[in-house]
Amino acid sequence: MELSEVLPKYWYNIVPDLPRPLPPPRDPKGAEFSRIELLNKIMPKEVLRQQFTTERFVKIPEDVRDRYLQIGRPTPLMRAKRLEEYLDTPAKIYFKFEGATPTGSHKINTAIPQAYFAYEEGVDHVVTETGAGQWGTAVALAASMYGLRSTIFMVKVSYEHKPMRRVIMQLYGGQVYPSPSDKTNFGRKILSENPSNTGSLGIAMSEAIEYALEHGYRYLVGSVLDVVLLHQSVIGLEAMNQFSAIGEEPDVLVGCVGGGSNFAGFTYPFIGAKIGSRYIAVGSAEVPKFSKGEYRYDFPDTAGLLPMVKMLTLGKDYVPPSIYAGGLRYHGVAPTLSLLLEDKVVEWREYSEREIFEAAKIFAETQGIVPAPESAHAIKAVIDLAREAKKNKERITIAFNLSGHGLLDLTNYQDMMVRYS
Amino acid sequence: MELSEVLPKYWYNIVPDLPRPLPPPRDPKGAEFSRIELLNKIMPKEVLRQQFTTERFVKIPEDVRDRYLQIGRPTPLMRAKRLEEYLDTPAKIYFKFEGATPTGSHKINTAIPQAYFAYEEGVDHVVTETGAGQWGTAVALAASMYGLRSTIFMVKVSYEHKPMRRVIMQLYGGQVYPSPSDKTNFGRKILSENPSNTGSLGIAMSEAIEYALEHGYRYLVGSVLDVVLLHQSVIGLEAMNQFSAIGEEPDVLVGCVGGGSNFAGFTYPFIGAKIGSRYIAVGSAEVPKFSKGEYRYDFPDTAGLLPMVKMLTLGKDYVPPSIYAGGLRYHGVAPTLSLLLEDKVVEWREYSEREIFEAAKIFAETQGIVPAPESAHAIKAVIDLAREAKKNKERITIAFNLSGHGLLDLTNYQDMMVRYS
Repeated sequence: MELSEVLPKYWYNIVPDLPRPLPPPRDPKGAEFSRIELLNKIMPKEVLRQQFTTERFVKIPEDVRDRYLQIGRPTPLMRAKRLEEYLDTPAKIYFKFEGATPTGSHKINTAIPQAYFAYEEGVDHVVTETGAGQWGTAVALAASMYGLRSTIFMVKVSYEHKPMRRVIMQLYGGQVYPSPSDKTNFGRKILSENPSNTGSLGIAMSEAIEYALEHGYRYLVGSVLDVVLLHQSVIGLEAMNQFSAIGEEPDVLVGCVGGGSNFAGFTYPFIGAKIGSRYIAVGSAEVPKFSKGEYRYDFPDTAGLLPMVKMLTLGKDYVPPSIYAGGLRYHGVAPTLSLLLEDKVVEWREYSEREIFEAAKIFAETQGIVPAPESAHAIKAVIDLAREAKKNKERITIAFNLSGHGLLDLTNYQDMMVRYS
Repeated sequence: MELSEVLPKYWYNIVPDLPRPLPPPRDPKGAEFSRIELLNKIMPKEVLRQQFTTERFVKIPEDVRDRYLQIGRPTPLMRAKRLEEYLDTPAKIYFKFEGATPTGSHKINTAIPQAYFAYEEGVDHVVTETGAGQWGTAVALAASMYGLRSTIFMVKVSYEHKPMRRVIMQLYGGQVYPSPSDKTNFGRKILSENPSNTGSLGIAMSEAIEYALEHGYRYLVGSVLDVVLLHQSVIGLEAMNQFSAIGEEPDVLVGCVGGGSNFAGFTYPFIGAKIGSRYIAVGSAEVPKFSKGEYRYDFPDTAGLLPMVKMLTLGKDYVPPSIYAGGLRYHGVAPTLSLLLEDKVVEWREYSEREIFEAAKIFAETQGIVPAPESAHAIKAVIDLAREAKKNKERITIAFNLSGHGLLDLTNYQDMMVRYS
């Protein structure tokens, strides 16, 4: 099969296939301004249209497909044979390797179409916020691919202590400001109150939105929203084609959950096609949103600037502990995934940092790939499933999404090695 | 074409196809011990046999082919379309991306067969030295793939200041010692003379060889020797299959040169098959071995423990400046490549650090991949060639080997950004 045949022509939208209607986003009662109206002003129009579409399949623009090919899509679907041997399991284990893209994670899959739709509108500048830098890196690259300028507000504590992500964004031509910054009214206000404020994702997002609004730029969003999950479906659609080419079908599909976009991107096409019988979302035991979260309307962002959505949440003001899998510290779960968890279509597991460190080490030694600490959560679940399959003598096929590599997380592993070895 | 069809069944050895016989390795006159005899004691027997073979094609063991597939070989051959557009050149530019393997460079291509041949002999432990860590990482992974233990002597200054490479070796299960260490007589002697000695590649190699000898382990070698170049030919052989599948043929082939193994691995199969008309080796202007080196017998290693070979060399005691492309600081050029340079079959170019930094930035912005600083030398040559093609209105096809990605070199880029921006 040619690469361009593996790459889908349409993204898949699970909204029309949900077991019941998705509760719509809404503005908070008595709000002083409309968040939904705000989205209209800052997001590329086509992105916003896709955010609210109920079409099952949304065409991927040819130009976006070309860029997907340029960044190395389709990513490989690999069999983890040596992990199987190590576990001495009758289960087959496959993984989709999103770390094979140049920015090292799945984030680029939505950054490219969002940048494209901004470019198509004639806008020449995109803006976003980033915590550890994974999303900002994807935006900087996607912007450079369309000749757009990019401005990224990076949480100051990361800007100062995780400079490598900043360097890669700058190599891609991105303008990176530590947030709070003096580039926005909001940033200046924070700084005047406390010049040594080290920032937060909420502050950075507020700055990015203000900056986009003031200059007429477009704001790009990295996770949680339906449109992001839609774009990420390229992962699962490719995997379906790849499984079909080798005559296999997965029984169990596994992914880690930060906001939910890599998990949804990988599993939703299989759920929609009724392939597989179990779908397992994996989170951090230190950020227990599956076991302790409530299903209710909440803000998807800590700044409270986006419309409220109904989701599983620990509360927008929840302060997560400082775990190494920074991408899993998010307080909520994407609305469609929350609904599927409520309705038991999707199962969940939570693992501690010590457990996922051990799983990461086993995976590195057997498969040679250092996984992102976030992805190591999925690996831990897969190891447990494969051991259960051995106990039950089940010849099942397990597939998981390796959402990113860990080459930019080696300082984290160094610390974990000291802590857990 | 199936992946396993792209992957060759034989490695290619250029020795029988050289324009004249390769001057043989030899012991220094009046040596107190035979270096050739030493190789017999520490290298896996089949590796040594391959080092001295004059067969044109050497069979790749099926098991090694399987491992090649497991680490993601064949690596992609990609067209650098956006770089072409940026340069507005009539030339087509292709690159082979060796950074797609899990250790991020081509080094794994020879680590796997060397570990395999050690394993086949019934040895359960391999030893090597490493400077910045690229080679040690490949050995640690290859060893783990065969269930072997690995011990890596890492130059102390790198061990202390470049801890990320140490962490990745440890994640692969490698035992890493800072060298000079207290694990060998040689290391203890050095330390007793100067406890704060920060080490050198020569010291680390001496320790690795002593350690292998004393314990009956096998020593693995990372570059320069003919057998390493033989194993690296998998790069060029795959590329030939990939070019053939798309109905293209490169006119000019380009690679950077540290010891010469990635350049040779990429270009030799094309030279042997008489495909292409120009082969361009690229070095660092700060380590001017092409322009200032002499073609004479010299030690390939700074410790003087290996047999002397006839090669282009700045002298084994040459002290290179501290450039960011650590892999290009080597004092010599592999014997076969030296001969091909002498006989003008291969051309050379040398570029300054400032020039290659600019090239790396252009490549990152256009193609989205941060190249290793070593590989950025090849990119700079390609950019110049494409500009010359524009001037001369030549519709040529240029191909280069992107020997590694730069995600573990971001601190280097950060420093270069400050220095050259």
